[in-house]
This record gives sequence, C-alpha cells and structure tokens, in this order.
Amino acid sequence: MTTIDIPDGSLFGIENLPYGVFSVDGDPARVGVRVGDSVLDLAAALGDDVFAAPSLNPFMAQGYDRWVAVRERIRELVSGEIPDGAVHPVGRVTTRLPIEVADYVDFYASEHHASNVGRLFRPDAEPLLPNWKHLPVGYHGRSGTVLVSGTDIVRPSGQRKAPADAAPVFGPSTRLDIEAELGFVVGAGTPSNTPIAPDDFPRHVFGAVLLNDWSARDIQAWEYVPLGPHLGKSFATSISPWVVPILALEAARIPLPGQTDPVPLPYLRESDPWGLDIDLVVEWNGEEVSRPPYREMYWSPAQMLAHLTVNGASSRTGDLYGSGTISGPEKNQRGAFLELSWGGKEPLTVKGEERTFLLDGDEVVITGTAPGADGGRIGFGEVRGRVLPSK
Amino acid sequence: MTTIDIPDGSLFGIENLPYGVFSVDGDPARVGVRVGDSVLDLAAALGDDVFAAPSLNPFMAQGYDRWVAVRERIRELVSGEIPDGAVHPVGRVTTRLPIEVADYVDFYASEHHASNVGRLFRPDAEPLLPNWKHLPVGYHGRSGTVLVSGTDIVRPSGQRKAPADAAPVFGPSTRLDIEAELGFVVGAGTPSNTPIAPDDFPRHVFGAVLLNDWSARDIQAWEYVPLGPHLGKSFATSISPWVVPILALEAARIPLPGQTDPVPLPYLRESDPWGLDIDLVVEWNGEEVSRPPYREMYWSPAQMLAHLTVNGASSRTGDLYGSGTISGPEKNQRGAFLELSWGGKEPLTVKGEERTFLLDGDEVVITGTAPGADGGRIGFGEVRGRVLPSK
Repeated sequence: MTTIDIPDGSLFGIENLPYGVFSVDGDPARVGVRVGDSVLDLAAALGDDVFAAPSLNPFMAQGYDRWVAVRERIRELVSGEIPDGAVHPVGRVTTRLPIEVADYVDFYASEHHASNVGRLFRPDAEPLLPNWKHLPVGYHGRSGTVLVSGTDIVRPSGQRKAPADAAPVFGPSTRLDIEAELGFVVGAGTPSNTPIAPDDFPRHVFGAVLLNDWSARDIQAWEYVPLGPHLGKSFATSISPWVVPILALEAARIPLPGQTDPVPLPYLRESDPWGLDIDLVVEWNGEEVSRPPYREMYWSPAQMLAHLTVNGASSRTGDLYGSGTISGPEKNQRGAFLELSWGGKEPLTVKGEERTFLLDGDEVVITGTAPGADGGRIGFGEVRGRVLPSK
Repeated sequence: MTTIDIPDGSLFGIENLPYGVFSVDGDPARVGVRVGDSVLDLAAALGDDVFAAPSLNPFMAQGYDRWVAVRERIRELVSGEIPDGAVHPVGRVTTRLPIEVADYVDFYASEHHASNVGRLFRPDAEPLLPNWKHLPVGYHGRSGTVLVSGTDIVRPSGQRKAPADAAPVFGPSTRLDIEAELGFVVGAGTPSNTPIAPDDFPRHVFGAVLLNDWSARDIQAWEYVPLGPHLGKSFATSISPWVVPILALEAARIPLPGQTDPVPLPYLRESDPWGLDIDLVVEWNGEEVSRPPYREMYWSPAQMLAHLTVNGASSRTGDLYGSGTISGPEKNQRGAFLELSWGGKEPLTVKGEERTFLLDGDEVVITGTAPGADGGRIGFGEVRGRVLPSK
C-alpha cells in the first residue's frame, strides 16, 4: 500500500479532485483523478471497470448520485492507504481527451466580448444585436475536432476577402486567434422534449474545463453570413485534460451580475442566479497577456443549458458547451487577440516584439483557478497549443 | 434456401440495393439491404459480424474497396439462393436510424432557395450575399437530434419577436416548416490536415439519404444573427432509413450547371463537375405540393465535402452533411413551405384548405427517385414525419 502526499498550496487538493483520462507506458487509456502531483488510477483503486474506459462517458452516464458517491469514496481513499500501482506521478502519464464529445455548442455569453466583436465586425451598427440580452446566443461547432491540450494546431487554410478586394483568395489564415473560454460537460442527458430547468443544472452537468476555441478571423469574417461561423472555427478546439467536477465549484459560486434590463423570460430564470468566480490567465509565448474574469459573464452556465434544451432538443452524455470568449471590462481582461489588438490595429508587445495575431511557432497556454471550499484555491490545469505552419 | 422476387418496375431492384438497419420482433437491430419488397439480413446471409451491428458505421469504416466487394457479393446472392431466415418482408421489419451520426453539417447549396430566403429575410438587400457563389455556405447542426423517418415531431417552443413587437415572447413555434434535402453520409473519414479533393468524393462518401431539416422560422428569424441558426433547427432532423450507395448513383450523374461567374477557387474544382438527377416529391397530408429537382443545385456534393475539410478539419465515419433545401426555378419546385407560401403571405391549398406553415397533426412525406443503370429508376424510399402538439 502507498499514500499520496499533497504539497501545501496545491491547486489539486482534496477540494478539487478533477477527472481525466490517462495512459502510462503505452498501457490502455483509463480514468484517473489528479491529486496533488499524482494521478490516481480509479479502476485499480476502486476495482470498478467503469473507470477502465478511454473516456469519462460511461462513468458520467451513471448520473448525479453516483458522481457524489464516487467523489466521497475518492476523498476517503486519498486520506488513507492506496493499493500499490494505483498511483502515478503526473509527470509520467500522458493525458488524453477526457470525454467522447457528443454535440459541441459554443455560446457568446460575455457582454464585453460580444460588444467588442460587434464594434470590430459591424462598425456602423449597434455593437450588441437586438436578441443578445434576451437569449444566450450560440451555435453548434465541430465535435470531431475537439482536441486535448498539447495537441499542435496546424494553421488552417481557407478563403478570405478584404473589403477592398474584388474576389476572395485562398491560403493560410493570416489572422489566427484564440478564444479563452470555459467548457461545460454534460454527464447525464435528457430525452427529447424534456427541457432542463436552470435549477436542475447540477444534476446534468458533470464538470468544467478550460477551452480554447482557435479562430481564423479572416476566414470567419468572409464566411459567417448568414449561417454563422464554420471553417473559421471547425479546424480545432482545445480543452484542458482535467475535468473539474461541478461539485468542486460550490465555493466559486457568486451572484450573477445584471440581467435587469431586460429581465430574462421565465424559462431562463433561476431561483438564485449564479455565476462562477474563476480567474483565467492567457500566456503568449510564456508572457502573460490577459486575465479574463469568468465572474463578468452575462449569461450563466445554467441558463445556457436551459436554452439549449428548451426547444425539445435531447441532450447526451458527452455534450460539451463553451461559454464563448471570456472578456472583462478592462483591456487586459480580453480573451481573444482580436480584441486585445483591436482588430490588429493596436499591436501588443510580446517578448519585446509587436504582435497582433498568431505566428507559426507561437504557443498559447491558458490556465485557470477558482476559490476552493477550504479557503484555498483549486486549479483547472492548463490548455496549451502550439501553432505549426500550414501544410 | 429461398429466393427473392423483385416485382417489375420496383424502385429497389439490383441497381439500387440500399443499406439500412432494421429489427424484427424485438430482435437486436442489424444491417440489412432492401431488395424489392424484402429486406436481406446481411449478417445472416454473409455470415459476417460487421453487419450484426446497430449501425452501418462498422461496415462503412472498412472503406471503399470493401463497399465495392460487398455490393458485388449481394448482387450475386440476390440472383441466386439465400439461406432461410435471411429474408424478411419489408412490412414486417422496423427500420432504425441507419448510422451513428458523428458531425452533422447543413449546407445551403440551392441558388433558388438562397435567393428566395434572402428576399424573405432581408427584403431591402441583395438576395444572395457576396460570399454565396464563392463557397458552399454551411453550418454545423445537432447530430444528437437526427432521427429516422417515422419519428413524430413535437412542435418546438422558443423565443420569437415580430418586428413591430418591443420584446420577444416565448411559446410554441407558429411557423413550423420543412426543408426537403439530400443528406450525404461519410463512410471513410480522414485525419486532420488531409483535405479531400472533390475528385476523391467516391472513396469517402458511402451513400445518400432523403433529409427533412424541420425548421421553426419564427425562432430562427429572431436568433440567427450573428452566429447562425440554432434552436430553430436543433430540435429535429429526419432522414430516410435506406442509405442509397453512391455506387448506385452513377447513372444519375449529370453535368453541374453554372459556376462560370465566378469560377470557383481551385480547391473546389472538379475534373468533371457533376450533379445528381434526383427528383423529390413533397406530400403534405397526402397531397403533392412540390417536386424539388436536385439537378438544379449550384454546389455539388463533392464540392461541399472538399470545402468541409479544406481548413484541415478531420472527418469521421458517420459524418452527415445536408445539401440545404432543394428548390428549383418554378414555384412548384420549392422545397420549403416558407418559399411555397412566400413567407406565409400566399397560402397554398392543401386538401381544400388554405395553409401556410404546419399545423398539429399534419404529416409530411418526402420521396425521391433517380435514374438507374438499367434504364429504370431507383428509389430513396421516404422520409416521413407527423407534427404533434408542443408539450
């Protein structure tokens, strides 16, 4: 038997216990929990084959009561002795995509982001469109290109057309960008025609991840009318490997700001509207360029899920929805380079160089932390990606 | 041993041989081929467990050479004697969703449809947006709500706002519509950063189905800027149960009309640009209301796939993409009630009643046929759905 030492101040203490999928030395991928600087092999520790799977989906599908029970059991285990072979140093494991993604939807829930993008894409109009404060605007993205952190991002090619040009040209994107977001993972879905009320969020959503919605702004600007973003986004979406349980985010709940003018329609109302006090940090080639504050988001995670299902659409284990870019009111709180560089017109200084959009070889790392129940903080780990030249 | 009699003039003769998934008397679902008025149980007939699956995906994933070989083998079988128990009358089987849908994308490939919708949704602007003739506009839809023909459609609820109203209201859609389309099923996908050239279409696309993209026009009109359709479409998309192999559509190939002004960018060019001469028929409560002609489509199936993957996005077995509403130049060739009733202003007469959008209890059946290799015709069967009241 062995024990796990959790370093003081670890972002992965027993108030966190995020789930992921890992492999060691080429062994089959399986479910683990990050504890301190270790990974606990759940199939080995608990002797339950639901964890001997290459995704969290079978476990998530068991539902809320089971999520609560397993979390309790892990807390007990971690405080005591653990079978030999069930603990690995985090540096020795390879993390995999933690979920089998069913449908992926991306929202647009930051008022600061939506206003900034409105000013940049439609300079002659009101920045927020008339529907924006009435419903959480969102669209479906490509679930097959959701990738785990660390996967390299090949620069996408596509059509772009500058306003002054007569016709589009084809080639590698010249305005490759990030979007710093949170992603929410549905663990227990619902059949058709059973909308999920906002108050039922915790029984359906298993956890949250950091998400980078890589975006080719030149491709997006040319293609996006009238059916929305497509190839400008569909090449890659990266997520962090450790899924932080919603159960671990109780202490991060804060009252939801705003929503008084207008008041949302009844299906979007919560008994006690809440947001999440999560701090993100965006590093570009190792230099911090932004600190997007999730607490500033206009629409809540529960409202987004209620909206997704109110038309009768079913939901499934593995559904993933993103918050949309997290931007705060300050310039250094913007979650996309489009906004940080104001459409490329106001370059940032990164490692002493003037920069607007991503160059080949650039690396972006987004990290995130939240208050934990014990007065400390819990971590989301990171979502990392490096840009490779187009093929 | 037994034999299959194919009635004269059957739309399911040996030039067709579409694949589906069926069950009999509650037995496990498995892969079958429709032949005349019979269904051939492929696992029983060929003794191959890849067909003892509840979707076509495992077989499709085996790739093009195998699709050709199995089709040959089925033709031999059907011309001779077949093991007892491997043949069922079509009236005795229950058809299931034939594929496990990976990503679902819907295009907008009919110039007549896009122009009509542009006139209706943006009456003060050019009907076709500037990008439309440069790229096949499309967007991702919800793969979890792709349903097999025969599934009832519960009227969706959502937000709508008439232009004159100050604020949106919530309730059942009052403008529930159809979109008559073809859907294309990817059998053999590609990894990231390996775009599929249009000429490689047959090696990747396994077959085609009829598709009804149910649409709530009032929800769609309010929500769709700037990120495209979402809840107005995500509640249900119905497909026909029999997947017609691309190998069966050789005789339906016709030269692609148009595309001279502008000429598409090189990645969208085919050696021999082709469309498909497929005739659809739309019946509303048993009365024929439209005959959408697939031959009139602007963008080809191969161009849509090339566009989908040109940015480096991977594709997967089970990816489904729709053509978008098929509308011809004539009024009685329009594939949506939005266009047939000109936004509700010019009602149709259906069974003696004036009608614009769908009422509860209405049933829509879309059928389709194409030329077969032997001078006869092959059939797609039907995609059928009935509207139930909102819950």
